[in-house]
Amino acid sequence: MLKDLSKEELKELESSLRREYEALKAEGLKLDISRGKPSKEQLDLSMDLFTVLTPLSDMISEDGFDTRNYGCLTGILEAKKLLADLLDTKPENVIVFGGSSLNVMYDTVSKAMIHGIMGSTPWCRLPVVKFLCPVPGYDRHFSVTESFGIEMVNVPMTDDGPDMDLVEKLVSEDGSVKGIWCVPKYSNPGGTVYSDETVRRFAALKPAAKDFRIFWDNAYNVHHLDVDRPREILNILEEAEKAGNPDIVYEFGSFSKITFPGSSISAMAASEANVADVTSVMKNQIIGHNKIAMLMHARYLKDKAGILNHMRKHAAILKPKFDIVEETLTEELGGLGIGTWSHPEGGYFVSFNTLPGLAKKVVGMMKEAGVTMTGAGATYPYKKDPEDSNIRIAPSYATVEELKKAIRIFALVVKLSSAEALLDR
Amino acid sequence: MLKDLSKEELKELESSLRREYEALKAEGLKLDISRGKPSKEQLDLSMDLFTVLTPLSDMISEDGFDTRNYGCLTGILEAKKLLADLLDTKPENVIVFGGSSLNVMYDTVSKAMIHGIMGSTPWCRLPVVKFLCPVPGYDRHFSVTESFGIEMVNVPMTDDGPDMDLVEKLVSEDGSVKGIWCVPKYSNPGGTVYSDETVRRFAALKPAAKDFRIFWDNAYNVHHLDVDRPREILNILEEAEKAGNPDIVYEFGSFSKITFPGSSISAMAASEANVADVTSVMKNQIIGHNKIAMLMHARYLKDKAGILNHMRKHAAILKPKFDIVEETLTEELGGLGIGTWSHPEGGYFVSFNTLPGLAKKVVGMMKEAGVTMTGAGATYPYKKDPEDSNIRIAPSYATVEELKKAIRIFALVVKLSSAEALLDR
Repeated sequence: MLKDLSKEELKELESSLRREYEALKAEGLKLDISRGKPSKEQLDLSMDLFTVLTPLSDMISEDGFDTRNYGCLTGILEAKKLLADLLDTKPENVIVFGGSSLNVMYDTVSKAMIHGIMGSTPWCRLPVVKFLCPVPGYDRHFSVTESFGIEMVNVPMTDDGPDMDLVEKLVSEDGSVKGIWCVPKYSNPGGTVYSDETVRRFAALKPAAKDFRIFWDNAYNVHHLDVDRPREILNILEEAEKAGNPDIVYEFGSFSKITFPGSSISAMAASEANVADVTSVMKNQIIGHNKIAMLMHARYLKDKAGILNHMRKHAAILKPKFDIVEETLTEELGGLGIGTWSHPEGGYFVSFNTLPGLAKKVVGMMKEAGVTMTGAGATYPYKKDPEDSNIRIAPSYATVEELKKAIRIFALVVKLSSAEALLDR
Repeated sequence: MLKDLSKEELKELESSLRREYEALKAEGLKLDISRGKPSKEQLDLSMDLFTVLTPLSDMISEDGFDTRNYGCLTGILEAKKLLADLLDTKPENVIVFGGSSLNVMYDTVSKAMIHGIMGSTPWCRLPVVKFLCPVPGYDRHFSVTESFGIEMVNVPMTDDGPDMDLVEKLVSEDGSVKGIWCVPKYSNPGGTVYSDETVRRFAALKPAAKDFRIFWDNAYNVHHLDVDRPREILNILEEAEKAGNPDIVYEFGSFSKITFPGSSISAMAASEANVADVTSVMKNQIIGHNKIAMLMHARYLKDKAGILNHMRKHAAILKPKFDIVEETLTEELGGLGIGTWSHPEGGYFVSFNTLPGLAKKVVGMMKEAGVTMTGAGATYPYKKDPEDSNIRIAPSYATVEELKKAIRIFALVVKLSSAEALLDR
């Protein structure tokens, strides 16, 4: 443990790490492990998406729409089936949207703000609207709610998902709590997989606000690092129905990290009543989303087996990168007592916790050494990590060589800043 | 003139037309001239859009983005250039969006409702927000504003565009007037081309509300029926800048009726300050729109010349259809004094006016005879045509044979209902 070293030992270590760090800075590196972006190699996996429509004999959907023309508000049948396969739900519960599930979530909040949910008072007319935010969480979720002036309330994550005692208390007691952001599987950034009990407790919530909704961003449902040993979660739509709460959840998903981010198709899955409510507003917004992208995805990925087969290829590229992170951190920081990190079985991130008060400093020093990381604090609402300790590592985009280098530097910087902090005590 | 016939003559005519109509009804036709949809033949023109990316060597944009990955909020450079060509503006004034310009317009109103425009009070906090609606106009524009509870005020169209005396008066005197819907070229449904004076007067408006915006839906800028004799309008962005009013207008456009409706790309074009304002909100909504669709369109259509070359092929299909409408109506109704209609040089519609009080009846009788038309009243806010006389004819989707039949039936129904009305006097 670093804290067990004597002051002199610490000082010596600090000096030697400092020299190493200054030498690194002089190298003028340019590395990026900030965002959960697929690598070029992963993007190359899906290039046949473009040839699936050639030769171009037939652009008609299973339900008879010419995908090249106007119409079909909620999406063509085969796209609903494919997205139902992705989210383990039924086609009739699916609305198909464009390439960005973030946009769908934003629009869903926007609709609630202006039109209300199922006839309830539009949120923009209420004095206070609150969202629960399991932390650490996904920065872009928090930006959405912040942009609408929605007050965000932190809820700590446990190994089984959000602290459900707190969620139940807040949701049932406070009618201004209108929603909660959830990434139920391989969560961003912690890699947490919600336990069956957590999902059941979500499904059985008794909200004070009848227009409370769970925003269930099932972004990584099939993004296993080992496709043969997938983690599975209970189906929230089914559990909610069983609990007599069918309308409590909006589920979201997309093919962004399966084919091409931003150019794929996405979905909301929800109860029949929610689908009708969302559609009633959506019909004034658009005539129909990109049906050609829908057709391409349906014909290319085909079904659940096709999706999993494709994810196996992604895993073959991603798993070695996650292994590098795990191995390097263990090798460099194991037993030192200056950091803990997640050991995800899927998704796109490793979540790292420094000693309290060091995250900003570490990310800043990484920047100076030429390595861009997600901003410290980004995993918390208002970018305020109360402990200033959480850092998100995104191993996917960098090459293996770049990643090795970046994580070694990261470990060095964590050691150096921790040594400095311990000296300052 | 029908009105000059004696009662007996009218009665005889009515009986004979009625017999003809009843015989038609018995045929069980199924024709549709309701929506401005391209025909299959037109869609077939753009099938090479899918092969432009194969062989798949390079998916990188001119400004260095891998179009297959996240990023690039406002669109890749070549798409901005192409949309600038479409709208006769500059790439730096363009934000590129997904396939639906209607969605862009909806989102623009939505943003103003929730976030306000350039720091002004969000419209949802104001007691009354009004939009001016030149009539007859585009039904989906009116649905957007109606869905937000915005009060719509009719402004009559003239041959040169909206009645600008009235527009100037309302905009300068009433601070609750926040916008106006315009289709400045080959307007929907009238086919009107705004005169230079009209555009200049729009550019020089002195609104009481500093967050007043002209919603300039330039949907048909290159949709000439004779590409060698195009109608041109003044550039509103340039005129607004000259008039010291650079921020007064949001311009919209898309490739929906050029390649594939709903699956193409669209744009907002606006001043630098407007672009910055819109982008500041948009950054919370989406990471980036479909860049692969952008790349496909840029590589396929290339530039203004490429766009016009493509539009020539559309015109070759559309012009004969518009000719059928014009010739049939002239032949059947010319000189009878029971209807007037537009003679568009571009766009997608013919606007027809019956004798007052007959539009709903005519559309209903068409339906009974198996011909679907746009609902009477749809060209007015709240679907209320005060004269009940305007009917929109959309000749594009039907085949030439279907269209001939549909317009003959239409002329018959107009004659029959007019004869009945004249008998009822």
